[in-house]
This record gives sequence, structure tokens and C-alpha cells, in this order.
Amino acid sequence: MAGGNPLSYRPTPRTTPTRYRDRARYDRQTVHRILDEALICHLGYLNAGDPVVLPTTHARLGETLYLHGSTGGGPMLAARSAPDGLPVCVTATLVDGLVLARAAMHHSVNFRSVVVRGDARVVDDPAEKRRALAALLDHVRPGRAADCRAPDPRELAATGVLALDLAEVSAKARSGGPADDPEDTALPHWAGVVPLSLTAGAPLPADDLDPAIPLPAYLR
Amino acid sequence: MAGGNPLSYRPTPRTTPTRYRDRARYDRQTVHRILDEALICHLGYLNAGDPVVLPTTHARLGETLYLHGSTGGGPMLAARSAPDGLPVCVTATLVDGLVLARAAMHHSVNFRSVVVRGDARVVDDPAEKRRALAALLDHVRPGRAADCRAPDPRELAATGVLALDLAEVSAKARSGGPADDPEDTALPHWAGVVPLSLTAGAPLPADDLDPAIPLPAYLR
Repeated sequence: MAGGNPLSYRPTPRTTPTRYRDRARYDRQTVHRILDEALICHLGYLNAGDPVVLPTTHARLGETLYLHGSTGGGPMLAARSAPDGLPVCVTATLVDGLVLARAAMHHSVNFRSVVVRGDARVVDDPAEKRRALAALLDHVRPGRAADCRAPDPRELAATGVLALDLAEVSAKARSGGPADDPEDTALPHWAGVVPLSLTAGAPLPADDLDPAIPLPAYLR
Repeated sequence: MAGGNPLSYRPTPRTTPTRYRDRARYDRQTVHRILDEALICHLGYLNAGDPVVLPTTHARLGETLYLHGSTGGGPMLAARSAPDGLPVCVTATLVDGLVLARAAMHHSVNFRSVVVRGDARVVDDPAEKRRALAALLDHVRPGRAADCRAPDPRELAATGVLALDLAEVSAKARSGGPADDPEDTALPHWAGVVPLSLTAGAPLPADDLDPAIPLPAYLR
């Protein structure tokens, strides 16, 4: 809709949750942060009429989300046979904590997630494809794309890239402690939050790495 | 097929990957371990003909995977209107590390994932529902189901539970260091693995928790 809020995605029936509407977010900053922080996403598409969900990495450039995969893989084959775009749902989820309440039914997970609906298109333009693949590397660790051997034409041809416009998008988040009913707070059960985070350990050099090559700054 | 290997799931065309077949696993022990370790999964189903992917928690009891959600939520409404079962794909993914190769195209992620295809049924039997909800709590932290207030009839009625037989199942895993082409190993780029794991921080008691209630053993 022309004249919409440029800072937010416009909710649609498909991006309006049926429950916990107060947990839904549509502002671009929140959505971008979740997509950028999440290392992987889960791609949903249809194969022979049935839903398939596969984990994959992603990268955001502005208002476009890029995914990649082998040209012989399921999603790429499906996208190639969908000239008007492949209907997909891409969901990225960050788990921030376990929420333990006194009542079984109030247990929860602190999380931040983004759901993107839309029709993914195959990227054929070589320049856009190279930009997307570089973004996928920099998504993992910013600076890595410039510090490795770029794909050669054969590798580029074997790799498919999908682009999905960030248009029909919503985020959802829960944070904070348990929300027990008042009559339950005196029960003798521990309640609170166990924080969770995806943590990086010390980098392990490849067996055949020249010991003279130092650990790059973006991995420290 | 009668006479199949009782230790493994039988591959079907839908659970045979088109690529990296050497990464596919069908043995029950591997599948069970991944499902049991993964805190959340991503549930894919169809809504008005389009794929939807939502994060949710899960629990395995033997060869059945249970999911739960509000009776008013999208998946439960879809399952209620699918008397023969709701076609779903449930995918659980553990991220174990970043794999940095000298060549852009050999970058990868060390991971373990399970994909379950099938038709999910709504659990109406109250005893099975209670068992499933207890398993969902114990999946988060074993022992928690016995250490909280069990759901009352009103809460039980507001919660939907889906059951999915573990029949059409595959796991996929990548581990180890980068697999660069021999001609790339002398390039001056750092190569190796950055281990990743979902790490629990110190539990944070609820603001209104009685300080006399100690941290339970299953959270230490």
C-alpha cells in the first residue's frame, strides 16, 4: 500500500498470528536484526504437493533474503520449474532461554523469530549471484568473503541462488520471566529462566593449515 | 516392508537426498539422539495451499513425536480440519560449527538434522495427551514434569497435541574439517572449524520466587 510506514512491514492476514498477537513485530529493524543474527534458517516449500522443511544458511542484502544450494538439490529443482516464483516460507529462530513456570502450561521458551512468506526467484544474473554468495559468507563471519578464493565459473554454475523479497514478513518474540497465575506463585516449585545462547568455541585449524597463517581478526 | 532392519528407518524416495547421499543416516539411534538433543524443531504444513514453517518444541516417546500448541493456533486448526491426518514435515537441526575452507564454495556448517515426513494426528485421548505434555516438559529438562503444577482440565482443553509416527525419517550430518581441493590448500587463507554449541547460562530466579526454594538438581 502506497503511503505505508517505511519503517515497518505491513501486516497481512498471512502474517497476523491467530494467538499471542502482542508478541508480533513488524518493524524492519527488529526483523533485520533477527535475520542477521540467526546463523541458519529453515526453508519450507512444496514437493509433489507436500511440505518440506530444510535447514540452510541465508543472508540479507537490504530487503532481499538470499539462500543458496546445489542446482541439483530439491529446492533449486522446484524453483526452476516455477517460472513465476516458488512459494516458500523462510523461518529463522533464535533461542534465548528456557522459561520455567510453576504451572506446566506456563512453561515457555524465550525466543526471537522471523517468518518470511513469498515467492522465491532463481538468481540468474552473474553479478547478483556473486554478490549473494559473498553475502552468504559474510553473514557467517563479516570479512570472510574477501579472505578466501572466490568461486570459479564451474563452481558458480553448480550453485543455485534463490532471492526472496522481504515484503510479507513478521517477527515474533518472547522475553522475560515466567507468567504464572497469581494463585500459583506460592507453589513450592522453582521458577525462572535458564538463559541459552549459541556460543563459539576456540577455532580449530585444519590439519593441513600452514602454521604461519594467523587466525584472522574476524574469528577472534 | 516386513522384515526390514529393526534398527533403521527404511529410506523412501522422499527421504533420499538428491545430493550428499553419504551424509544421510537412517539408524534409529542417530535419529533419536538428534531429536532428543534438539530443543526446538520447525514444523512445516500447508495453509491455504502455501507452506508455513513455525518453530515449536517437541518430544519423542518411543517412535512417536509429539508437538503441542494452542487449539486456536494455525497448525491445530489445520489438523482439526484434516481427519485423515495433516501432512507435515518436522525438521530438527543442531548446529555444531562453522567450516571455513580456503575456497568460498567449500565453506559449510557442521550440523546434525532430522527430517520427519508424515501425517500428524490430533491427540484426543486424555491419557495420551497428559503423557505427551509431560514428555514435552521433560524434553526441556528431565525431571521437570514431576516438579510443577500439572495442567487442570481447562488448561488441557485449551492445548492441542499433535502426534507424528516416526516412520518416514532421515537424518543428515556433517562433521570434521574443511574439504578443500588439493590445489587450494596452499592458499594463504585460514581454514578450520569454529565449534558452536547452544550453551546454558546461570539460571535466573523469577522476581517473585521464594528465596527458600533451591535450584533443582536438574537445572544445575
